Amino acid sequence: MGALDEGHFNEELENGVCLGDCVELGSEGEPEYPAIEDAVRVLLQGLGEDINREGIRKTPHRVAKALREGTRGYREKAKDIVHGALFPEVGGTGELVIVRDLDLFSYCESCLLPFQVKCHVGYVPSGKRILGLSKFSRVADVFAKRLQDPQRLANELCKALQHSMKPAGVAVILQCSHIGYPNIESAIPDSNHQGWIKLLVSSGSGVFEDEKADIWADFLSLLKFRGVTDRPLNGIVEQQSWCPSHSLTKTPTNSAMTEAVSSILQSLGEDPSRKELVGTPARFVTWLMNFRISSLEMKLSGIIQNQRDCLNLNGDVKLSERHLSLELNVPFWSQCEHHLLPFHGVVHIGYYSAEGVIPVGRSLLQTIIHFYGFKLQVQERLTKQIAETVSTILGEDVMVVVEANHSCMISRGIEKFGSNTATTAALGRFSTDPSVRAKFLQSIPDFLQSAP
Amino acid sequence: MGALDEGHFNEELENGVCLGDCVELGSEGEPEYPAIEDAVRVLLQGLGEDINREGIRKTPHRVAKALREGTRGYREKAKDIVHGALFPEVGGTGELVIVRDLDLFSYCESCLLPFQVKCHVGYVPSGKRILGLSKFSRVADVFAKRLQDPQRLANELCKALQHSMKPAGVAVILQCSHIGYPNIESAIPDSNHQGWIKLLVSSGSGVFEDEKADIWADFLSLLKFRGVTDRPLNGIVEQQSWCPSHSLTKTPTNSAMTEAVSSILQSLGEDPSRKELVGTPARFVTWLMNFRISSLEMKLSGIIQNQRDCLNLNGDVKLSERHLSLELNVPFWSQCEHHLLPFHGVVHIGYYSAEGVIPVGRSLLQTIIHFYGFKLQVQERLTKQIAETVSTILGEDVMVVVEANHSCMISRGIEKFGSNTATTAALGRFSTDPSVRAKFLQSIPDFLQSAP
Repeated sequence: MGALDEGHFNEELENGVCLGDCVELGSEGEPEYPAIEDAVRVLLQGLGEDINREGIRKTPHRVAKALREGTRGYREKAKDIVHGALFPEVGGTGELVIVRDLDLFSYCESCLLPFQVKCHVGYVPSGKRILGLSKFSRVADVFAKRLQDPQRLANELCKALQHSMKPAGVAVILQCSHIGYPNIESAIPDSNHQGWIKLLVSSGSGVFEDEKADIWADFLSLLKFRGVTDRPLNGIVEQQSWCPSHSLTKTPTNSAMTEAVSSILQSLGEDPSRKELVGTPARFVTWLMNFRISSLEMKLSGIIQNQRDCLNLNGDVKLSERHLSLELNVPFWSQCEHHLLPFHGVVHIGYYSAEGVIPVGRSLLQTIIHFYGFKLQVQERLTKQIAETVSTILGEDVMVVVEANHSCMISRGIEKFGSNTATTAALGRFSTDPSVRAKFLQSIPDFLQSAP
Repeated sequence: MGALDEGHFNEELENGVCLGDCVELGSEGEPEYPAIEDAVRVLLQGLGEDINREGIRKTPHRVAKALREGTRGYREKAKDIVHGALFPEVGGTGELVIVRDLDLFSYCESCLLPFQVKCHVGYVPSGKRILGLSKFSRVADVFAKRLQDPQRLANELCKALQHSMKPAGVAVILQCSHIGYPNIESAIPDSNHQGWIKLLVSSGSGVFEDEKADIWADFLSLLKFRGVTDRPLNGIVEQQSWCPSHSLTKTPTNSAMTEAVSSILQSLGEDPSRKELVGTPARFVTWLMNFRISSLEMKLSGIIQNQRDCLNLNGDVKLSERHLSLELNVPFWSQCEHHLLPFHGVVHIGYYSAEGVIPVGRSLLQTIIHFYGFKLQVQERLTKQIAETVSTILGEDVMVVVEANHSCMISRGIEKFGSNTATTAALGRFSTDPSVRAKFLQSIPDFLQSAP
């Protein structure tokens, strides 16, 4: 009997417990948002993809579902959440209450990529009413789950809490992290680039309206050790510097793609002619076109052939005379083909090189990694492709580990902010000798979550 | 025009954007699970509460909703999630893939309290099929969102992935944290008690079935720096030591309450006669009865009077001759009256005492904190009550800060694992002099999240 046999599976794994209202999860069949799905198909075709390829066949459905879910704030109201969760406190409190470290994500209205938010809310109750603590998170989500700009998000959240609760005052501090853009032109990113652009914004109302009020000092005292070191000032942030899409120089020539993005904005309930959104479709398409199939193909094959000639691999060097070379923490970027969302992180490469042979340069490895990164990908395939290509240059004893943060793990229903993924590919001695593999794996440093 | 006026509010805060399918959120009106709500009313009455009191009037509804949501795994199937997210990889990969640091929570089947889980999954694909990364989180939730025991959770997740994906092997490591129980008898908890009981469990199938297989070493290498230091062994954990409810000695005498808990188990789709659940209603009621109204009342008033007499407060000492005394990180426990879920953390107390007067003992402050903690509470009220009581003993210049983790912030829909809450109450000089307040606030150390 097959393990997936209905009866067997249910009995063994589900304890036979399944109430009448069993829900179907993960069903990715019927189109729910046909206009968005059509638009995503246009984008995939613009990237040179075969929209019937197995891995991306259901991508339009997944993208549409994720976008609708990620912008559900348009269909929610703060006051519906606050209403019914305001509790009277006999005698009142009138004292500062702080809800700290709420993890949220939002969509950047400039480029449509998700950004992460660590949200801190402070308020001083009045009228002897306090708000249930979980509601701060729910109200924050009403405004985060839209196309946003950090300062507007802070202002809207602050204003909504002030209007719906009518406290003595509300303060909001957001620590926002936007994915940085790689410099695809040079194919070698700034090695100091941590992959995130950070921005701190704040907003205050009522007793927090004056940013010099003592209550701000109290609030900030209770946020110390969170990187909120200095008192932030409302509204003086240079907004142009936040989203890296504003520094893009290329403009897309594929008007079908930009129109498709416009239609997506409309389907989400936005007005594509809103001034902040006017350039968004072009910026999103420019970003996306980084991942056009084969954009780096020609470049790489020349480099590899050249490098192989120079290295003059000597197969006669005995294994025992070779030693483990490491190239750790090489940054990479890619685009998840299942969700059209970026994933990025670091690649670690271990290989055996002969004594006296100069190890291959980091820049060549970076070029190979970029070649396989800048396309629609899955991390498992990326890892294998890097290992195989490196082995054509450096010989058969190669192991690759890729560690990544996936936007699709945070900016969708599951919202697993801290999670990350490691994939491996071991060739030659690495696949056969556990001690060789262990030596490499143990040399890999801790993978740092650099998001907030 | 009032700020909550419908039109004004929508126009200003919602950008006028609200599609036809606006959803009602946070509505807490109509009963959805009447059997559970009735049972919760029995529990509240058993705690000596007035079920019509404003703060807890809707608690039965909230508890029922949270319990249904927190056990939705009974109504989900792993294979529905995996089905449709298995992607063919041309050439296959056959290499270890790891999804790390998935934050989950589950309900302890021994005591019905939620416990937190940091989940790591590794698998080796076969048959040229890989699973979409987010599905590991979704499948884990199918089994986490039930009444569970850590080892069974690991086994069920491992088995479900093995059966539905048919990979070469699956490994699961769970780092579980259960809230510890305070020792209410002594009213002074162990000062080393971090408030969490931790347990590491693992499960393996296929190539991971043999825990000595080299693939386990690879998996663990890529989990280093996560506190998974040594290779865990399957199934040798002393299960009795995990849930602190097993060491409870008192047994509840209120059979209406235990019967109510049994009926809740049944409403959730569980079998109350399952051997692991037989003692659960009694254990849960025993835990809950810690928070019976006024259980410590008599004890406290005697202690306070006694202490006041001893301290012989001298109102004539000039303010300038008094100095700031601190009592930091005093542990506390309480039970959220909105959700019948524990919140716990630390209390910081600052007060001015006269030179030469011996500061009040930490144990008295701990007793006062326990007195206000061990009942159905909200953190804001708890903070104010501690401050007011302390000031009757130590004079008017008192400030209290309470920092807490709320189970209700993780074990419900919002699942904000890292979030925590700070509340303040400032009396006398602390309320009027910002510099005095600042001096106290700046002396408060970082609040450590000790959960995984």
